[in-house]
Amino acid sequence: MNSFGRIFRVTIFGESHGESVGINIDGCPAGLSLSPEDFNVDIERRKGGVQKGTTPRKEDDIPFFKSGVFNNTTTGAPVTILFENNNTRSSDYSKQRAVPRPGHADMVARQKFGGFEDFRGGGHFSGRLTVCLVAAGVIAKKLLSSLKLSVEATISEVAGEKDTEKGLQRAIDAKDSVGGIVECRVSGLPAGLGEPFFDSAESLLAHAVFAIPAVRGVEFGTGFAAARMFGSEHNDAIEDTTGKTRTNHAGGIVGGLTNGNELVFRIAIKPTSSTPKEQQTLNLETNNVEAFSVKGRHDLCIALRVPVVLEAVTAIVLADLLMLERHIPRILNS
Amino acid sequence: MNSFGRIFRVTIFGESHGESVGINIDGCPAGLSLSPEDFNVDIERRKGGVQKGTTPRKEDDIPFFKSGVFNNTTTGAPVTILFENNNTRSSDYSKQRAVPRPGHADMVARQKFGGFEDFRGGGHFSGRLTVCLVAAGVIAKKLLSSLKLSVEATISEVAGEKDTEKGLQRAIDAKDSVGGIVECRVSGLPAGLGEPFFDSAESLLAHAVFAIPAVRGVEFGTGFAAARMFGSEHNDAIEDTTGKTRTNHAGGIVGGLTNGNELVFRIAIKPTSSTPKEQQTLNLETNNVEAFSVKGRHDLCIALRVPVVLEAVTAIVLADLLMLERHIPRILNS
Amino acid sequence: MNSFGRIFRVTIFGESHGESVGINIDGCPAGLSLSPEDFNVDIERRKGGVQKGTTPRKEDDIPFFKSGVFNNTTTGAPVTILFENNNTRSSDYSKQRAVPRPGHADMVARQKFGGFEDFRGGGHFSGRLTVCLVAAGVIAKKLLSSLKLSVEATISEVAGEKDTEKGLQRAIDAKDSVGGIVECRVSGLPAGLGEPFFDSAESLLAHAVFAIPAVRGVEFGTGFAAARMFGSEHNDAIEDTTGKTRTNHAGGIVGGLTNGNELVFRIAIKPTSSTPKEQQTLNLETNNVEAFSVKGRHDLCIALRVPVVLEAVTAIVLADLLMLERHIPRILNS
Amino acid sequence: MNSFGRIFRVTIFGESHGESVGINIDGCPAGLSLSPEDFNVDIERRKGGVQKGTTPRKEDDIPFFKSGVFNNTTTGAPVTILFENNNTRSSDYSKQRAVPRPGHADMVARQKFGGFEDFRGGGHFSGRLTVCLVAAGVIAKKLLSSLKLSVEATISEVAGEKDTEKGLQRAIDAKDSVGGIVECRVSGLPAGLGEPFFDSAESLLAHAVFAIPAVRGVEFGTGFAAARMFGSEHNDAIEDTTGKTRTNHAGGIVGGLTNGNELVFRIAIKPTSSTPKEQQTLNLETNNVEAFSVKGRHDLCIALRVPVVLEAVTAIVLADLLMLERHIPRILNS
Repeated sequence: MNSFGRIFRVTIFGESHGESVGINIDGCPAGLSLSPEDFNVDIERRKGGVQKGTTPRKEDDIPFFKSGVFNNTTTGAPVTILFENNNTRSSDYSKQRAVPRPGHADMVARQKFGGFEDFRGGGHFSGRLTVCLVAAGVIAKKLLSSLKLSVEATISEVAGEKDTEKGLQRAIDAKDSVGGIVECRVSGLPAGLGEPFFDSAESLLAHAVFAIPAVRGVEFGTGFAAARMFGSEHNDAIEDTTGKTRTNHAGGIVGGLTNGNELVFRIAIKPTSSTPKEQQTLNLETNNVEAFSVKGRHDLCIALRVPVVLEAVTAIVLADLLMLERHIPRILNS
Repeated sequence: MNSFGRIFRVTIFGESHGESVGINIDGCPAGLSLSPEDFNVDIERRKGGVQKGTTPRKEDDIPFFKSGVFNNTTTGAPVTILFENNNTRSSDYSKQRAVPRPGHADMVARQKFGGFEDFRGGGHFSGRLTVCLVAAGVIAKKLLSSLKLSVEATISEVAGEKDTEKGLQRAIDAKDSVGGIVECRVSGLPAGLGEPFFDSAESLLAHAVFAIPAVRGVEFGTGFAAARMFGSEHNDAIEDTTGKTRTNHAGGIVGGLTNGNELVFRIAIKPTSSTPKEQQTLNLETNNVEAFSVKGRHDLCIALRVPVVLEAVTAIVLADLLMLERHIPRILNS
Repeated sequence: MNSFGRIFRVTIFGESHGESVGINIDGCPAGLSLSPEDFNVDIERRKGGVQKGTTPRKEDDIPFFKSGVFNNTTTGAPVTILFENNNTRSSDYSKQRAVPRPGHADMVARQKFGGFEDFRGGGHFSGRLTVCLVAAGVIAKKLLSSLKLSVEATISEVAGEKDTEKGLQRAIDAKDSVGGIVECRVSGLPAGLGEPFFDSAESLLAHAVFAIPAVRGVEFGTGFAAARMFGSEHNDAIEDTTGKTRTNHAGGIVGGLTNGNELVFRIAIKPTSSTPKEQQTLNLETNNVEAFSVKGRHDLCIALRVPVVLEAVTAIVLADLLMLERHIPRILNS
Repeated sequence: MNSFGRIFRVTIFGESHGESVGINIDGCPAGLSLSPEDFNVDIERRKGGVQKGTTPRKEDDIPFFKSGVFNNTTTGAPVTILFENNNTRSSDYSKQRAVPRPGHADMVARQKFGGFEDFRGGGHFSGRLTVCLVAAGVIAKKLLSSLKLSVEATISEVAGEKDTEKGLQRAIDAKDSVGGIVECRVSGLPAGLGEPFFDSAESLLAHAVFAIPAVRGVEFGTGFAAARMFGSEHNDAIEDTTGKTRTNHAGGIVGGLTNGNELVFRIAIKPTSSTPKEQQTLNLETNNVEAFSVKGRHDLCIALRVPVVLEAVTAIVLADLLMLERHIPRILNS
């Protein structure tokens, strides 16, 4: 469903080329100061047109508070934030109705919703909706920062290269799109966050992470490499009563609970589905497999825009877990 | 929390050395034939003592139906299945109260529950509870098989070796524990399973998968390798109106929805935390970091026992999604 | 929380004098035709200014589709409907900040949200939000009508009088506000709706009903009168295999499940809290109990506006239960 | 579904004549002392055979802790409590398979579950399951008592008589069963419990209350009588900054939130469906409406057994709301 979270609960809506996209945040404490300016930095980070390798589509992306904010402060009632869709060129897409783009949700959305889906620009499946995640993430991060916690995600690999520019150059040289790896770290977390059995910290983070379009994998701590380590090598020796460990192969989570060490995890982002290269796909009118080219400009590497989105979903998950552990009160005294 | 699922909903309980472990399954259709014998194969697969590299601890693991089954048939009321804990030697563990085992939940459980947790043998955090997942999985698989669907998970790597025996030999030679990779495949799935935005098929599968102890990563289709592919290389060309694709790099999920191709995903299992090697950990009585050795016998490679558990959680997730799509009725005519 | 429902799930937001109020409907099938005109009749029924005894505050109440509707048809993605707040006179209320109105949520909202609540006109606690329920109800009723079901609520008592006009005259004569009883009936329901143990049909209906402001009681079938009947008198004799009964004291629900007979229940609405009569309340600035008069015009009998709201929440509950029983598909062929 | 609650969450299971009935409580804080003796008083209050007018069926009703309790203290893991069904005489019921008892769930259960339901003694729909509610209620009450809160329900009317004995005599004289009214009061509650919009305190209490078999209505404060009062008469004047009011017509809830005054509400219980009087019902084998007599002994007035059950569901709801407001910690220091 389009909702996530138990106490701090977000509900997302909208389509890429519909009137708007938006998010509703229930369970946000009263008394949190909140103004549109708070969103500037993260919305800017998410935008295309800034970095080499991202699309130049300009979106104003002004957050409109529709409920839950009064006198620049949250009221305790649900906060609703809307983003209008201005810079859309639907004609780009309507011609492609018969040609489901490979790697995109066009075909599956048609199958699930019987052809009634808003197909323009990916509709409800578009990466456009991640601006809503970012908005909710801004609020969640403000809650976390009241506990001196900060979440930081960075791009750690593009097209297999640690150096972003080198990775992008591979895309440019090949006239193709490329993928990447994004890493997220949170330090200062209290021990004990996460709820056995099914709501382990990894379970909730992974759940939220796979809502981000283009994510294909997630790993905590040493992750897949752990499968090739010896136990004596992988185990982190506990060094003091706070639970601090000598190494951090666990990435800050043991038994599904945060253990007081730095939370570290990574996600794999597939190459942008819209690539400059010609591809093949089914034409639903002719019923033939045909050559197909993406019109317009697209991100060469969508992974570059993911860090701020990953921070957002991480903060959303942690805010909820912190509330379950009674670390965040219902009324903030700021 | 200890519940998972929206319509087909499981609730798990119990501790390793308490009186019992068990699971409650709500939303199971009426009319499904069910007898204790149905559980034999999968419970046997999960057991130690059979394969080289797994622990010889013998557990009877008889499923006791406590509710929801009448005349060997589900009634539509919640099914509760209990497993008694017989073969426990708590004295092995009580001495270790002061010495939280590295890699285990001992320390974090103590922090979360203030020392009130049942610490014996890992308590509620023990791998023992996976027998309950297996039991619910048997029921979920029976529901899937009524739609001609089958779930199959296999060990694909032990200690970095494709050949299980070679991988185990590495553990034996090193007198240490090792990890592994388990792969799961489901064919015949209808297109359109998964719920945007937050309940994508990957989100729900990953959520459930990380409830399995020792899982450190999950990847769908080409997974992490996708981050190093070009878009034109990664995209799967759609070949017919059912959505069948030429390749299956997506692993059967696009846009968070199953696309009618084979579902393929892999999980990374860390090396067994209890290793024969001497390790170091904090002694909470002396407050010193001390040498520590695991008593008793343990699995050299816990990954060997995971396939049947992975099948179980996969079937549980799919049964729920199939119900949401109205593919499974409330009353079965078997 | 501000969400309700399991498959057909509504999320409400907004404040009386904020920018807007709105509702998000998740789980609505794709393919339902929907245009703003569909809302006219029910929104009109809810409005004040039409009937004697209701407030003349004019609200335009135009439903703006913000997501989930494309080509006048639902897409399967969440539907978001916004109503702007135009006709507000906040100055009426800001002066009263120090004087919590008796019978209203002013005082409790302040206590719960620490003074950060939007206090203008009742804020998030205002009856204004019922326009959102009505909007979701229009959609739910359209789903029900595809199954030939209709929901009808009527005012059955005003100020103790069966004759509405007589009841209102009592209010006018006394220069005071009055309460009333509203009855709801649904015929044609299939047997078996409702989910034991906690989601009985009565449980879910009552849950939703008490979200409507001013409701003080709910009773099914003979309701409170049942407590004074003999068993042989109250039991409804089953007459045929459809479950049809000779009498309908049960009001169409037995054992928490609909029994195929007409669903009948009633709710009690308290007199409008804003009464023309002078009252007493605490002044939070002076800390004295003082005389207090409501400014502006208000409904003499808010119960008159409740029937359409009661129909709405009833339809919302039934749509969800019908989906759980697989009576409503995910894609409508209209 | 068979679960209820957001943080303090109960899951119920079992059938009247199956092997057992039981309840699982998730979200119970660690550190609560708990022994089987804690349950004696309330289980005894619920039992038949003690009061005039209740059935003499003796049930041992020993609570078996299956999980979540260690050293007579809750561990923070889910608590599972089982009650075995000993004193059952299924033969009483199996003959009646073809004759759905009027007022009971026999017919609707058959329709919902296609004849697969455990029909013996009402199966999953039996009042037998209320022993599980009582057990969870004992735990919830212990949590409340740590905040100096106590819940008290009393029978306030039997067969229309304030004097229980008189009411019962009416049943005995008429050789018929009778109904009653039960009232519940809780004092000392903090203001602000309840969650707008859909989880008002009344919504959650009503939801839980209608899970109790035989409940036909619920009203808060003056309830249905409020519909016949004037506004100036019904409004409770606020007298001090704690929110204390001069009168308490609201029954302690305004705007869906507790207001710091005594919580007062009443429920209507229908006459026991199993009455000594001969009745008529459909015979599903002959397809004729036939005379029908209840075999065995039954409660003349089931309402007499309800107070302790009403206390239980009230305490369950309040424990959850208190946790949402962070009034109950995750670890108790007792």
